[in-house]
Amino acid sequence: MSHTTVGLIGAGRIGRVHAENLVQIPEAHLRGVASPHLDETWAEGLGIPVRSTDVNAIFNDPSIEAVVITTSSDLHVELIRLAAAAGKHIFCEKPVAFEPGPIEEILSIAANAGVKLQVGFNRRFDPSLLKASEAVRKGDIGDIHTIRVTSRDPTPPDINFVKRSGGLFFDFTVHDFDTVRFLSGSEIVELFAVGEVLIDPRIGAAGDIDTAVITLRLANGALAVIDNSRHAVYGQDQRFEVFGSSGSLAIDNTRATFVTTSTSKGVFTERLHGSFGDRYREAFVAELRGFLSSVREDRPVAVGAEDALAAVRAAHAARKSLAENRPIRLNEALKAVEAVGAGSSR
Amino acid sequence: MSHTTVGLIGAGRIGRVHAENLVQIPEAHLRGVASPHLDETWAEGLGIPVRSTDVNAIFNDPSIEAVVITTSSDLHVELIRLAAAAGKHIFCEKPVAFEPGPIEEILSIAANAGVKLQVGFNRRFDPSLLKASEAVRKGDIGDIHTIRVTSRDPTPPDINFVKRSGGLFFDFTVHDFDTVRFLSGSEIVELFAVGEVLIDPRIGAAGDIDTAVITLRLANGALAVIDNSRHAVYGQDQRFEVFGSSGSLAIDNTRATFVTTSTSKGVFTERLHGSFGDRYREAFVAELRGFLSSVREDRPVAVGAEDALAAVRAAHAARKSLAENRPIRLNEALKAVEAVGAGSSR
Amino acid sequence: MSHTTVGLIGAGRIGRVHAENLVQIPEAHLRGVASPHLDETWAEGLGIPVRSTDVNAIFNDPSIEAVVITTSSDLHVELIRLAAAAGKHIFCEKPVAFEPGPIEEILSIAANAGVKLQVGFNRRFDPSLLKASEAVRKGDIGDIHTIRVTSRDPTPPDINFVKRSGGLFFDFTVHDFDTVRFLSGSEIVELFAVGEVLIDPRIGAAGDIDTAVITLRLANGALAVIDNSRHAVYGQDQRFEVFGSSGSLAIDNTRATFVTTSTSKGVFTERLHGSFGDRYREAFVAELRGFLSSVREDRPVAVGAEDALAAVRAAHAARKSLAENRPIRLNEALKAVEAVGAGSSR
Amino acid sequence: MSHTTVGLIGAGRIGRVHAENLVQIPEAHLRGVASPHLDETWAEGLGIPVRSTDVNAIFNDPSIEAVVITTSSDLHVELIRLAAAAGKHIFCEKPVAFEPGPIEEILSIAANAGVKLQVGFNRRFDPSLLKASEAVRKGDIGDIHTIRVTSRDPTPPDINFVKRSGGLFFDFTVHDFDTVRFLSGSEIVELFAVGEVLIDPRIGAAGDIDTAVITLRLANGALAVIDNSRHAVYGQDQRFEVFGSSGSLAIDNTRATFVTTSTSKGVFTERLHGSFGDRYREAFVAELRGFLSSVREDRPVAVGAEDALAAVRAAHAARKSLAENRPIRLNEALKAVEAVGAGSSR
Repeated sequence: MSHTTVGLIGAGRIGRVHAENLVQIPEAHLRGVASPHLDETWAEGLGIPVRSTDVNAIFNDPSIEAVVITTSSDLHVELIRLAAAAGKHIFCEKPVAFEPGPIEEILSIAANAGVKLQVGFNRRFDPSLLKASEAVRKGDIGDIHTIRVTSRDPTPPDINFVKRSGGLFFDFTVHDFDTVRFLSGSEIVELFAVGEVLIDPRIGAAGDIDTAVITLRLANGALAVIDNSRHAVYGQDQRFEVFGSSGSLAIDNTRATFVTTSTSKGVFTERLHGSFGDRYREAFVAELRGFLSSVREDRPVAVGAEDALAAVRAAHAARKSLAENRPIRLNEALKAVEAVGAGSSR
Repeated sequence: MSHTTVGLIGAGRIGRVHAENLVQIPEAHLRGVASPHLDETWAEGLGIPVRSTDVNAIFNDPSIEAVVITTSSDLHVELIRLAAAAGKHIFCEKPVAFEPGPIEEILSIAANAGVKLQVGFNRRFDPSLLKASEAVRKGDIGDIHTIRVTSRDPTPPDINFVKRSGGLFFDFTVHDFDTVRFLSGSEIVELFAVGEVLIDPRIGAAGDIDTAVITLRLANGALAVIDNSRHAVYGQDQRFEVFGSSGSLAIDNTRATFVTTSTSKGVFTERLHGSFGDRYREAFVAELRGFLSSVREDRPVAVGAEDALAAVRAAHAARKSLAENRPIRLNEALKAVEAVGAGSSR
Repeated sequence: MSHTTVGLIGAGRIGRVHAENLVQIPEAHLRGVASPHLDETWAEGLGIPVRSTDVNAIFNDPSIEAVVITTSSDLHVELIRLAAAAGKHIFCEKPVAFEPGPIEEILSIAANAGVKLQVGFNRRFDPSLLKASEAVRKGDIGDIHTIRVTSRDPTPPDINFVKRSGGLFFDFTVHDFDTVRFLSGSEIVELFAVGEVLIDPRIGAAGDIDTAVITLRLANGALAVIDNSRHAVYGQDQRFEVFGSSGSLAIDNTRATFVTTSTSKGVFTERLHGSFGDRYREAFVAELRGFLSSVREDRPVAVGAEDALAAVRAAHAARKSLAENRPIRLNEALKAVEAVGAGSSR
Repeated sequence: MSHTTVGLIGAGRIGRVHAENLVQIPEAHLRGVASPHLDETWAEGLGIPVRSTDVNAIFNDPSIEAVVITTSSDLHVELIRLAAAAGKHIFCEKPVAFEPGPIEEILSIAANAGVKLQVGFNRRFDPSLLKASEAVRKGDIGDIHTIRVTSRDPTPPDINFVKRSGGLFFDFTVHDFDTVRFLSGSEIVELFAVGEVLIDPRIGAAGDIDTAVITLRLANGALAVIDNSRHAVYGQDQRFEVFGSSGSLAIDNTRATFVTTSTSKGVFTERLHGSFGDRYREAFVAELRGFLSSVREDRPVAVGAEDALAAVRAAHAARKSLAENRPIRLNEALKAVEAVGAGSSR
């Protein structure tokens, strides 16, 4: 098995998840990690030889073929630029950027540098979502009429994270926008968002919402609806349904164990997964393996920056819809973004 | 067990369902049936002594204490007036009327006549919905954040029925509006509807839609979403979820049998119920028994005309929202209805 | 709809269940009830005109066409004789008798009198068991290899009942023996029983067991296994599986409601049915309707005394197997019964 | 993370499964593989430096601390002797040996050599079985009354394998005997086995059976039942239940994906796993990690040769029970084995 030598930038929560997966993937060699506050013990325990607080330790290492960028979102674009300049293939966590402009820019930068650029929409590698998506493509349920996405987090994020996150639509719903595109094979053309602060008033004070329902119209004529919550006490709730002219495909919550306990109080199973990391464990591994295989075999990546772009455009439309309490067409939202952007120094 | 003597008016599809239930309910005596095109053999087979094409055979029979009105919707209001004048207690199929005005009118007519008036929102008597509703009331899931209703019919109605039905929102979604109110214990204050013709172009030609997603805001701050289809090939699809601060209550599709077959092709169970009559069989019996018990014990009915009023107002708002592609507040829709009504001879 | 006039004998627990079903079955007219300790209020409330402590009030009433015998088991045979002599069709609760001899006797008595005789193996009318049985007959799972029956009661019976009941195999497992025959369409040829007193030492003191596992060989070569308990704290547990060369049919526990509650403690549903009456509600109604239809249309009954005979023979073999800790062939058990019987005054 | 250097002996089907897991386990370094017909390309692709057809390449390599023995069963005992002599820790696939004597012998050899010896009863590391076992230990279901094991393979083995396998009880049921011990925490004291050839007459011609039901009595008074089949067309069927005085724990079949498809034909999910390798994928990794951790931390292994001994004794009793059609006590079976063994040259 040929190996790809990898460097990882940003060893926070999601960075650690990726690093711990990389050391178990036989076709990867995790050679280096760079992070401002690097936990040396952790990195050494994983057997990573190059450990630094300076990203150049990664970019300047000629043996490193590919980088995994898992820093905070505001650094993504600059790091992608540097990685492309250093000729490294790039796996970058979502959302890449909060504005369409920078995403379009790095799309062409990566293309010009001839490096792969994959975005971390991990759900596209989940076995159940993959299977459903393939069944839709094969026509198992005919024409698509309605898509339902229920996506709820088990615990609201830290309020400091909320402030930096870009808001629910950019940090959280962005995955659901991508899922609707993935399951439907169609584009979002218009949406209407309602949202409330029902869980934590501090989230409202930070200008964000914690509960939302978004209705979408797709280019193929189908309707879709996403409902979100930052706090499902019973665990990570991830359910999807594609309903069509010849049937429906429903993806239920996955389970870590298959034990049912029956007592005088009733019949019960354990609560759902405690984190998205647990829920999408296989998908996190599979997305890295998919990226490495695209690199080794010089094939297109499964999820590109154009997918990040589409999801971010939807998030912009949702923010606008919520603010103005009316349905927003995505190209209308886009123009508004561009109008704002035109005056900037970008 | 004391009996209540009943007359039934309108022996079409739903009328027959109620009649066949009434003869099996020990506390009811179905004495008479009146219907323009009465099937004598059917009525005689059920052992109904009074059989007529004239409603006065029912209204003028002093032994009949209560009437069940199951005619086409356009006759409901007039029959309720006549029944109240004859001093009969009244069970009337939904939606009673398509306009708020007449419903308000009969509300006061029934009150003045001192007769019970129950509306046929049968789902309120479904064992699973009742159980979930009680659990919500008891606080099992804390404050309500989101409600989801998926309601899909197994076969699109006859196009002639579609033309007379008042449209999807008045004929079909009206049940879902009531369900949201029942499960939440709160009122709908604003909604946004999207709809499409994806199943049968004749439905579109008749000015109606066959697929819809409606987002609602409730007075208690919760959000709700209803998705509808006229054609779920796998059967009657009725799923409900109330999600709150301490958990969720989900009502899954019911099943007639509990057999799972495993073969080399997979693991399968039979399709869902083939009709709402099969799905809500117990609820149809229970709503009549509930009505009879309200009559006998002189207690308030479980579902009154004020519930029909609220659901019809929501249907008006949905129609307006769909037409204007914007969210509509229910009191705004109401004013519009009143404005139109003001010029009429009503 | 033509009616059959019915008299019921024995208004204990199961008798009341049948009486309350009969008054709701339109094709039945429950004219009389006879029981040594008759609850007049209950019987009058059901509107039963003839109420007596004397069975002759039933047998001598010429308008009564059929009787339902639900007395204690020791009276079944004598009452069947009297009913047949009076020319009444007969529905009798299981097991009819504890010995094969009397069952064979009443088989010929009923045949000679030209009256129907149906035995109360209600499970044969359960929608799920019926459906599975039909699927087996149609060959959906090919040749039968293994049958599994799990049958557990929610609460151990009163110790006084245990003493009169004939023991677990005769009172309880007898249903499972019949179920194995029904699902397989084959006969039991040999069995091996193990049993223990794990729930209540008083059951052991009464010479009975409360927990059992019985392995069976069928005439068609298939193997079967029954496991029984007198005390499943989570409710009435009734599961069945037929496994064959092309697949399996599994019948799961039925549910009264379809609500799932998810909280921080897990995902749960209510406990199973609290009694066999709740679990087999539909089956109890359907077996009476089946009997009435056999009477009206002069068709053979679905469950005859020969089925009681086969199940009682299996119960005898199980008792012998438990006592001798070895497998017993049914014809061996039968000969032993006959040998004992030969010397008796029967 | 400290590593353990491992050598693997026997690269057949199960050997490859273990080798491919070892290269993904960060705390293992798979240094060598020895196998009579070694696939060099496969071994090189996994990056295993030492590749040989001679087991001494493993035993004589001082850097190798532990060996994984996955040869055919007849070589297990001799290889364990050699490994112990070389001071290597040992992971050996079940059943270690077909006779109790040799297992007892290697138990003392390993103890004297001071090396760990773990046996491949992989189910003990399955997340669901582990969880259920812990719940039983914690008393969640009170005293154990009944245990049910359903274990069915998706495809009958090659007839040549059947001839060498030791028979169904030694090759297949041996896992179920261990599972009953694991779930109950008790010992098997007596059993009764019935078996048939219902799938493939060649299995019968080879002196084996393909379908079996085994009833067991445990030392704690509980009853258990195992049913086996060599051919479940719908996939690997592995279900377990522990029923006790305060409830039950049921382990259902696991699923690779959670997609449900509903069409006009019904509601279905994919067939079960296609092999035990897929079903127990996590367990196969976890048992190796458990073994490596016992080696590194010098802790007792989770599954020792005494567990193999107990399961093999049960298999002997089952074979005797089937042959003599009577229940067999395990110490009786053991004496019979010893009597035979006494005259041998062992």
